[in-house]
Amino acid sequence: MRTGADTLVDSLLAGGIDVCFTNPGTSEMHFVKALDRTPEMKCILGLFEGVVTGAADGYYRVADRPAATLLHLAPGLGNGLANLHNARKARSGIVNIVGEHATYFRRLETPLGADIEGVARPFSGWVRTTLGPEHLAQDAAEAIQNARRSPGLISTLILPADVSWSAGTAIAPVVAPVARRLPDEGQVAAAADVLLRAGPQATLLLGNVGVRGSGLEAAGRIAAQTGCRLLGEIHNARMERGAGRVPLARIPYTQPLENALRLFEETQAVVLAGAAAPLSYFAYPDKPYRLTPPACQLVTLAEPDDDIAQMLELLAERVGAGRQTRAVVAERGEFALPTGPITPEGLGGVLGALLPENAIVVDEAVTAGRTFFGQLATAAPHDWLSSVGASIGFALPSAIGAAVAAPARKVVALSGDGSAMYTLQSLWTMARENLDVTVVVFANRRYQILRGEFGNLGLGEPGQRADGLLSLADPVLDWCALAGGQGVENGRATDLTEFAEQLRRGLASGGPYLVEVVM
Amino acid sequence: MRTGADTLVDSLLAGGIDVCFTNPGTSEMHFVKALDRTPEMKCILGLFEGVVTGAADGYYRVADRPAATLLHLAPGLGNGLANLHNARKARSGIVNIVGEHATYFRRLETPLGADIEGVARPFSGWVRTTLGPEHLAQDAAEAIQNARRSPGLISTLILPADVSWSAGTAIAPVVAPVARRLPDEGQVAAAADVLLRAGPQATLLLGNVGVRGSGLEAAGRIAAQTGCRLLGEIHNARMERGAGRVPLARIPYTQPLENALRLFEETQAVVLAGAAAPLSYFAYPDKPYRLTPPACQLVTLAEPDDDIAQMLELLAERVGAGRQTRAVVAERGEFALPTGPITPEGLGGVLGALLPENAIVVDEAVTAGRTFFGQLATAAPHDWLSSVGASIGFALPSAIGAAVAAPARKVVALSGDGSAMYTLQSLWTMARENLDVTVVVFANRRYQILRGEFGNLGLGEPGQRADGLLSLADPVLDWCALAGGQGVENGRATDLTEFAEQLRRGLASGGPYLVEVVM
Repeated sequence: MRTGADTLVDSLLAGGIDVCFTNPGTSEMHFVKALDRTPEMKCILGLFEGVVTGAADGYYRVADRPAATLLHLAPGLGNGLANLHNARKARSGIVNIVGEHATYFRRLETPLGADIEGVARPFSGWVRTTLGPEHLAQDAAEAIQNARRSPGLISTLILPADVSWSAGTAIAPVVAPVARRLPDEGQVAAAADVLLRAGPQATLLLGNVGVRGSGLEAAGRIAAQTGCRLLGEIHNARMERGAGRVPLARIPYTQPLENALRLFEETQAVVLAGAAAPLSYFAYPDKPYRLTPPACQLVTLAEPDDDIAQMLELLAERVGAGRQTRAVVAERGEFALPTGPITPEGLGGVLGALLPENAIVVDEAVTAGRTFFGQLATAAPHDWLSSVGASIGFALPSAIGAAVAAPARKVVALSGDGSAMYTLQSLWTMARENLDVTVVVFANRRYQILRGEFGNLGLGEPGQRADGLLSLADPVLDWCALAGGQGVENGRATDLTEFAEQLRRGLASGGPYLVEVVM
Repeated sequence: MRTGADTLVDSLLAGGIDVCFTNPGTSEMHFVKALDRTPEMKCILGLFEGVVTGAADGYYRVADRPAATLLHLAPGLGNGLANLHNARKARSGIVNIVGEHATYFRRLETPLGADIEGVARPFSGWVRTTLGPEHLAQDAAEAIQNARRSPGLISTLILPADVSWSAGTAIAPVVAPVARRLPDEGQVAAAADVLLRAGPQATLLLGNVGVRGSGLEAAGRIAAQTGCRLLGEIHNARMERGAGRVPLARIPYTQPLENALRLFEETQAVVLAGAAAPLSYFAYPDKPYRLTPPACQLVTLAEPDDDIAQMLELLAERVGAGRQTRAVVAERGEFALPTGPITPEGLGGVLGALLPENAIVVDEAVTAGRTFFGQLATAAPHDWLSSVGASIGFALPSAIGAAVAAPARKVVALSGDGSAMYTLQSLWTMARENLDVTVVVFANRRYQILRGEFGNLGLGEPGQRADGLLSLADPVLDWCALAGGQGVENGRATDLTEFAEQLRRGLASGGPYLVEVVM
C-alpha cells in the first residue's frame, strides 16, 4: 500500500528536496520504509540530532536549496534546536519532519508525549501538525514552499504516526514563493545620497546574500565609485572571498568592545544592505552597545528578506557604478609556508599557503582562529561559512552538509576544542559517508573566549573555582582517539611543520581527516 | 560589590541547593564569579548541556532534593531539553538558571537572541524571567520552592545579564511547599473493595515513590494480605529492589505488544497508586493501545502528586494489612558466574553475581538488557533508575548525578551503544570528578529496538536502505577509544569471562571505568 509517508517523500522530491539528514525513531519507521522504494532520496544518518540539523544548515548555505531532516518526537527535535537556531539566524531553509504519536494517542499520558509544536515554534518560521491523512499533501507543499522562500525559512511539519501509515494521496503542487517587496526607489536614492556625500566616511554593510555573487560584485563597483568602505557582518552564512573576489572585511568580535567601536569612530553613515544595525555581541556594564557613534546616520537599503542583490545593483546604477565600472578585487597573495612553534598567525599562514581553489571553509575556531579571516583574504578563492547564531557545535555538522552539497569541493572545518565537543558525533557521519572534510581542532584546552569575556565584563582574573569551570585541561581530551574511535583518520600537530604536513595529508585523503593542533 | 549573582547563589544555598551542574557562557560569568566566593556550592562542568540536565535528573532521583543547572541562553537550554524531558516525566525537581542578554539588549536583533521562555515552557513546571534586580530574591525563592515540591517540578529561572551584575539584595525566604491534597477516604475504600473482591485477579500498580521505601513496604503487606499482584510501571525514577525488598515486576516494553496484553488478560481490576493507566508504548495500526481488557476496572488510589506512601499505608490498614502484617520480600538468589559467549542472559548472570550491595543501577540497555531486570530481582539490594521519559542519552548523564548524590555507593550505568552516543561527553565529567561509575556499553552496533519496531508496525524486514539507517556498523564505534580519549579507563569484553573480569576491574577501580561489550 502507498502510505502517507510515501506521499510525503514524493512531495519532497517533487519540491526539489532530495537529501534528508536523519535520526529516526519508532514514529518515523513508515518514512524509513518509504525510503526503500525511493532511491532518489539520499538519506544520511546522524547519531545525534544536532548533527542532523547542523548538516541541513550547511547544506542550504552551499546548495541554496533546502534539505529535509527526520527527527523523533519532542526530545529529538530538542536535541536539534541549537543548530536550528544557527540556521534560523543564517536564514537557511530547512524542512523538519518530526514524527509524533498517532493522533488518537498523543493526548494520553505516555513516556514520550510532549508539546512538539511548543518546542518547534521558537526556531521555526512555519509549524504545523498534520491532523489527518487528507491534509498531508497540502501541508507538505506549504512546508516546502516556505523553506524555499528567499531567504529560507525553517518549516517544521509534525507527522503523527497514523497519518504516516494511512493510505497516501496524490501530492499537491508547491506554489511559487510569494513575490518579494518591490524595490523602493526612495531607499535607493537615500542610500546613494549618503554614499556620495560621505565617501570614505560611509560604510556599506552587507548582509545575507550581499556578501557573495552579484550582490558582492555590485557592492565592489559602488565602493570603487564612491570610495565608501565595504564591510560584512561579524558572522555570515556564506561569504565568497579570496583572490579575484571583492575584498570584504567584517565587524570584529567585540572582545574587547573598543576594537569594534574604533572601527566606526570616523563613520558618518552606514548603509544597511540586508544587514542589521551594528551592535555589540553582548551588553557590558556601563558600556555602549551600539557600535556606531550617536551622530552616525543609519540608512536601510534592503531588509534581510528583500532582494539584496537587486537593490545593490540599483544602488550601483544610481551612484554611477553600472556594469561598465570595474570593482576592485583581491590579488592572489604570497604565502610562504611558516615553520616553528604554533601561533595563530603561523596557523593562518599555513592555511593560506595550502588552501585549495574553491574550498569551503567552515569556521568555528572561536579564539584560536581570530587572525585567519584576515590572513586568508588573498588566498585561493574560497567560501567562508560562520556560525551566524553563535551557538557552538556548528562547524562539524555544517561541514557535513557543505560536503554533501558540493562533493567535488574540499571542505575545511576549523573548530575550537570546546566547540567541537558539542557535536563530536559528526565525525562518525563523515566517516560513514566518506565526506571530503578536513577537520582542524585547535586544542587550547579551555573555553578561552569565556576567559576573555570575564575580563570584558570587568571581573578581572577568574579565581581558582571559576577558572576550573572554564578549563578543559583535566583530563586532556585526546582528539585523535575521539576521531579514530569513530573511524576518522587523524594526526596531531605540535608545531607548524607538523600542521602543514597534517593539513596536506587531510586535503589529499579525499575522505574525512582530523588534525588536532595542540595550542 | 555583592551582585545579583551573589544573591542567587546565596538563595540556592539557603534553599538547600548546593550542587550546580553547569555549562556556562558569557551571560553567566557573574554567576561563575560568585562561585569563587562560595565554596559551599559544588559546581560540576559538563561539556554539553544534555550532560548537565541529565546529571541534575539523576541527582534528584538519588538525593531526593534538587540540584541547579547553569545554562547559556536559548541554545544552551535547547541542548538540555531531551534530558529535561526525562526529568519531567520522572518528576525530578531541578532549578535551571538560564543566562539571558541584558534586559535592555534582549529585544534587539542579535546573534544569540531567541525566545528562551518559549524554549523552556514545554519542559518546565515553572518559568520566569527576572526583569529587574529587585525581583531576583523573590523569583529565586519561588523557583526553589517549586523545584522542592513533592513530586518535584522543573523550575526555569531566566536571568538577564544586567540583573546578574546589578547590586544584590537580601535573599527571600523559601516558603514551605503547599500542602498536598488530603487523603480521600472514598478512594481508599474503593481500592480496598476491589482488591479484597478480586484477590489474585487484581493488580496494584505502583508509580513514582510507590516503588521504594515505606510505600513499597506497605504495598508488600497489601499483596500478602489480599493476594493481589504488585507491578511497577515500565520505567521508574528509582525502584528499590533485590534481596530483602518487596519483589516488584514491571510492565514489559510493548515489543511485541502481545506480551504486555497477556500480562493483563486475566486482570479484573487495577488499582493505580501514583501510576498512569497502563498503555502501549506507541500506538500500532489496528491494535489496541490500552493494555487492560475492556471489562477491567481501573481505580485510582493516588494521583502521581498525592502522598502515595501515605495512601498505600491507609489502604494497607483498610484491607487488614497493618504494620503487624509481614510483607513478602525477595530472598538472595544464587548467581553462579556464567562463562562462554555473550548472551543477554549470560550478561545478566554476571551482573547478578557481581553487583555490590547498595549499588545504583542506571539502566538504558535498551534491547541488550531486557532480561537483566528480571534476573537481578534476587541480587544484592540495589536501586534501579530508568529513563521515565524514554528520551535516549539518559544513562551516562544520570549516572553522574547519582554518583554525586551518593559518593559512597557504586553506580553501574548500563547503556546501548546507540543511546550512549547522544551524550558521550558525560565520560569526560566522570573522569574530571573521578566519579565511581562503571559504564557498560552493549555494542550491538545497530538501533536494534527500531528493527524490532519495524516488525511491530507490520513493515516486515527493512530493505537495504532502511536497514542502513538503523545500523551503526559502518564504521564501527570503538568505545574504548572514545572513553580513553576523555580520560576514562576502559576495557573490552568479547565473552562472559572477559565481561566478569572487566566488570570486576571497573567496580574495584573507585573511579570511572568503561566496559565495551561486543554483542
